[in-house]
Amino acid sequence: MVAFKEPMSTVHRVYNFAAGPAVLPVPVLEEIQRDLLALPGVGMSILEISHRSKTFESILARAEADIRALAAIPPGYRVLFLQGGASLQFSMVPMNLLGPGSTADYIDGGSWADKAIKEAKKIGRVNIAASTKAESYARIPAQSELVLSPDAAYVHMTSNNTIEGTQYKQLPDVGPAPLVSDASSEMFSRPIDVGRHALIYAGAQKNLGPAGVTLVIIRDDLLQRSADKKSSLPSMMNYAVHEENGSLYNTPPTFAVYALGLVMKWLLAQGGLAAVGVANERKAAKLYAEIDRSGFYRGTAAKADRSVMNVTFRLATEELEKRFIVESTAAGFDGIKGHRAVGGMRASIYNAFPEEGVDALVDFMKEFEQRLG
Amino acid sequence: MVAFKEPMSTVHRVYNFAAGPAVLPVPVLEEIQRDLLALPGVGMSILEISHRSKTFESILARAEADIRALAAIPPGYRVLFLQGGASLQFSMVPMNLLGPGSTADYIDGGSWADKAIKEAKKIGRVNIAASTKAESYARIPAQSELVLSPDAAYVHMTSNNTIEGTQYKQLPDVGPAPLVSDASSEMFSRPIDVGRHALIYAGAQKNLGPAGVTLVIIRDDLLQRSADKKSSLPSMMNYAVHEENGSLYNTPPTFAVYALGLVMKWLLAQGGLAAVGVANERKAAKLYAEIDRSGFYRGTAAKADRSVMNVTFRLATEELEKRFIVESTAAGFDGIKGHRAVGGMRASIYNAFPEEGVDALVDFMKEFEQRLG
Repeated sequence: MVAFKEPMSTVHRVYNFAAGPAVLPVPVLEEIQRDLLALPGVGMSILEISHRSKTFESILARAEADIRALAAIPPGYRVLFLQGGASLQFSMVPMNLLGPGSTADYIDGGSWADKAIKEAKKIGRVNIAASTKAESYARIPAQSELVLSPDAAYVHMTSNNTIEGTQYKQLPDVGPAPLVSDASSEMFSRPIDVGRHALIYAGAQKNLGPAGVTLVIIRDDLLQRSADKKSSLPSMMNYAVHEENGSLYNTPPTFAVYALGLVMKWLLAQGGLAAVGVANERKAAKLYAEIDRSGFYRGTAAKADRSVMNVTFRLATEELEKRFIVESTAAGFDGIKGHRAVGGMRASIYNAFPEEGVDALVDFMKEFEQRLG
Repeated sequence: MVAFKEPMSTVHRVYNFAAGPAVLPVPVLEEIQRDLLALPGVGMSILEISHRSKTFESILARAEADIRALAAIPPGYRVLFLQGGASLQFSMVPMNLLGPGSTADYIDGGSWADKAIKEAKKIGRVNIAASTKAESYARIPAQSELVLSPDAAYVHMTSNNTIEGTQYKQLPDVGPAPLVSDASSEMFSRPIDVGRHALIYAGAQKNLGPAGVTLVIIRDDLLQRSADKKSSLPSMMNYAVHEENGSLYNTPPTFAVYALGLVMKWLLAQGGLAAVGVANERKAAKLYAEIDRSGFYRGTAAKADRSVMNVTFRLATEELEKRFIVESTAAGFDGIKGHRAVGGMRASIYNAFPEEGVDALVDFMKEFEQRLG
């Protein structure tokens, strides 16, 4: 087990390459631990405080303010804290935004887009604007491939594909149609141009915090479509209901919101999204350089579309891969097995993943190649 | 601020009478704190571990086993860990169980039942089997008042009314119809006869754990109705989808499930539901005795239906009530203000609320009366 290079004398932590829930910043964990029995001056644990209390109201307001600062959110957008992860958004997006007689365009660029499409089809008419499914989603559909509907209710994309290890390098041009992005696995890992989106959603459990809270940023004009459906849509599935109640329509996942807020504070202390973006590029470049160095390892994603978050690679045989996974796990690198749909290996290196962990993995890869190459 | 009578020399905690999120057992908070940076032998925080890991699988399995043991769940029932709280169940129940052409009976015994009814009406046909709305929900509808539909899809009840401070003392007889109970605010505060229910749901944030996870216990025959709707219902809203995936269809709220599991372990250590039921009765009896003692305080709920969880009472004037709330808060009793719909005071005394806190409140009430009575 690798001793974690942080000022923690007694706690041993492994390098956690899991795709999510995933590694969190150690200072965030330490603050949660310190205040777990009672928030300073409050006399209650964050796990016990009422969502209607002034304390929680200020936690929520601070988290939103920090999110707005980090992403430089322009006026005309609302920030919501919901539950159910991206999987529930797969249904909420069409239930709120796709009216009868209209069509939603979906860019089918990965396994999660495929799931989003399946759920949207239960709700309304879907047009697949482009698909790389036949190529095992090894690349992002090109701009030139997009076949968009006239007057689409919205265009849905997945900005980073956790399973296949691909990522948009620039947003697609979808003309006047509202762009809806599932940014779950790359949210706040680099600067984001919110103004080019109509709706962004992200489960927290990669870069934003622990599992249990979902961040939604939605433009006012889309909220109006939700407001029109208040008498028919379940209240919990209606964006406008949540917005009107300041994300307190029902009891929110108070602890997850608190922890997300601490991660936002940590992101600001890192220098914001531009700074973490640079650090993430540097970490990913080290891994891809090692993958490309000798041919012993083989990247699975198209080079132009390689994800900075999820680095997928294979070895010559499945037997070698098994051995790599067993030996790397024993050496203190956890969660490096690729998704069963793709096989091979996947190193997820989100914001909080330490650069020395990447260096250690590169060393291990070199050593493994020397022994078995 | 009252120093909490627990072995915590430096942490000061108030008495938390909040209706939920609410007080949790101190040993549970201490275990969470101790292991926050890394679960023993795992090298990662519970906030960071993959929901697909062996560690989390065993946390989930242990929580379910303890729930089954605590409630003596008979064969033929499934235990699900979901998100969205009771508010999402208000929609999931009719979406899964109420087919076209059939009717669901709702017992309208409190403000939350009223909300459940409003959501169910968006989905299908609803019959109000009985209502005490005209009496401000000050009592539970009597058995003799129930007008049930022939062949009802189900009968829905709210077993404890957090806002009005009433509680079923015995389950209603609904004949052969499946009984669905929103047990959010009394779940596991006393023994529960699961076999008389077809579905029980409860947001965790009162007696089960922190906010962010919802417990659902569902009988197999009801699951079949969900299975029949797999192609039309959103997957996240379908009980059968969650059941087939062992509550891992999507990323579950891992931390909330873990914390709930620790609370279950604590409940078992207290002697199980019969033992906590006795303790809860004793705590509530002390408060109700003080309320009834002199006439200075006035209980708002019908005596026969008084809740053991939420003790609601008033004073002669709103001015006196305001003063009571200000002074009790200053003395370290937090969250005692009643729900805005009812006014007055509400002392929520869930499982984890310490008996010495009840004693301290009774002392405060006597002292307040002496000064101002």
